[in-house]
Amino acid sequence: MVASMSTNAKIRLYVEQPLGQGQSIPLSRDQAHYLFGVMRLSVGAHVLLFDGQTGEWLAEVVEAGKRGGTLSCVEQTKPLQMPPDLWLMFAPIKKARTDFIVEKAAEMGAARIMPVQTDFTNSERIRQDRLQAHAVEAAEQCGGTFVPEVTDLQKLDRLLAEWPEDRQLMFCDEARVGEALGLGDVSRGPWAILIGPEGGFSDAERNRLSALAQARVVSLGPRILRADTAAVAAMTLWQQQLGDW
Amino acid sequence: MVASMSTNAKIRLYVEQPLGQGQSIPLSRDQAHYLFGVMRLSVGAHVLLFDGQTGEWLAEVVEAGKRGGTLSCVEQTKPLQMPPDLWLMFAPIKKARTDFIVEKAAEMGAARIMPVQTDFTNSERIRQDRLQAHAVEAAEQCGGTFVPEVTDLQKLDRLLAEWPEDRQLMFCDEARVGEALGLGDVSRGPWAILIGPEGGFSDAERNRLSALAQARVVSLGPRILRADTAAVAAMTLWQQQLGDW
Repeated sequence: MVASMSTNAKIRLYVEQPLGQGQSIPLSRDQAHYLFGVMRLSVGAHVLLFDGQTGEWLAEVVEAGKRGGTLSCVEQTKPLQMPPDLWLMFAPIKKARTDFIVEKAAEMGAARIMPVQTDFTNSERIRQDRLQAHAVEAAEQCGGTFVPEVTDLQKLDRLLAEWPEDRQLMFCDEARVGEALGLGDVSRGPWAILIGPEGGFSDAERNRLSALAQARVVSLGPRILRADTAAVAAMTLWQQQLGDW
Repeated sequence: MVASMSTNAKIRLYVEQPLGQGQSIPLSRDQAHYLFGVMRLSVGAHVLLFDGQTGEWLAEVVEAGKRGGTLSCVEQTKPLQMPPDLWLMFAPIKKARTDFIVEKAAEMGAARIMPVQTDFTNSERIRQDRLQAHAVEAAEQCGGTFVPEVTDLQKLDRLLAEWPEDRQLMFCDEARVGEALGLGDVSRGPWAILIGPEGGFSDAERNRLSALAQARVVSLGPRILRADTAAVAAMTLWQQQLGDW
């Protein structure tokens, strides 16, 4: 019964309030518009909800209006599955490709997504709220129960200067394209992946990275990958060797 | 001298005519517009050319006009590097994501890119010429010397019915998300990767795939990846274990 209900409930929504058995969830105007206006759900319909903290829940529409509505939590359908402790750091590029990297990082299971400003980063501003919304959408779509946090733009040199001692760093340097560099014998635990900016790293950045004991250069083959491709490829290598794949 | 010339020549162009020492290359109207109108090159400027067959060449502008022009091949800067014998098969999805898959497949080093029509494929038509142009652009951008062929849309069941005996097939089935399935102990040689369509495979397709001795299911982790993410992730796993990375 529940299995078939949950199979039919194709819509997955992230909500900010904590969920629990019997919990009543008031809908915002936007959520009501999406569920009742766009998706044409009515009272009695089922949706899947997750709050990033208590897993996934089957919920039922108990009130449906143009400007609001209420859902009620029927029962848990999935426990919370946290991604591994992986940060994805990248230099923002053109809008569509930046959106893409955020979407892909959420799908691939990054715990935190960090736009960084490097010496050769062109774009100096990001819309953190818009990028966070992309991460939510990707989490809704990929069946995850966790939404990675998208941080504000931070300067790479400052991040490296205060780099946490226990966090290893895998970085992909397009100047080393074609060299046979792998993760090799590394340990699990907190990690970060840094995708080189499209203009490459500056010499100062490269020196700082070389001096960092926690850092390891990894090669992504003989062709120069765009930053968005490199992000997915690097996360694949990491997830397969050290993550939850 | 040449090294610095070739470093300054940032523009890479794919041309259809075969290249060679001293070879003269007449430019089409579009190419002339791009080089002289958009990129503002003039006589004496350098560009990098590749023809998909003889590697990469440094060429010099010898005539520059509004409607045409001529380049002359100075010398070879890279030998031809063929990608491994890998086909990427995928079911076309929304336009932007289909374009994206083709771009990524060229960057990641697929030798042939094959849109396939599955039982649950929505989009039944593709613009082969437009997709081929995306593959050319990606090859120009990634520094490769080869352009993968984008084939016309083919029916998956027909392809599987006539599957080449010596070609292994890695397929990614979202119904098996979360199972620990890897490439395991497989051999090099001709391979194909098949990305499951967004609507999933039909039972008939799944049966046909199971019956194929050359086929092997591979898991891409516990989250459901979009087809474009899955394409990059699957090619990463393959390239790392069996390809040219």
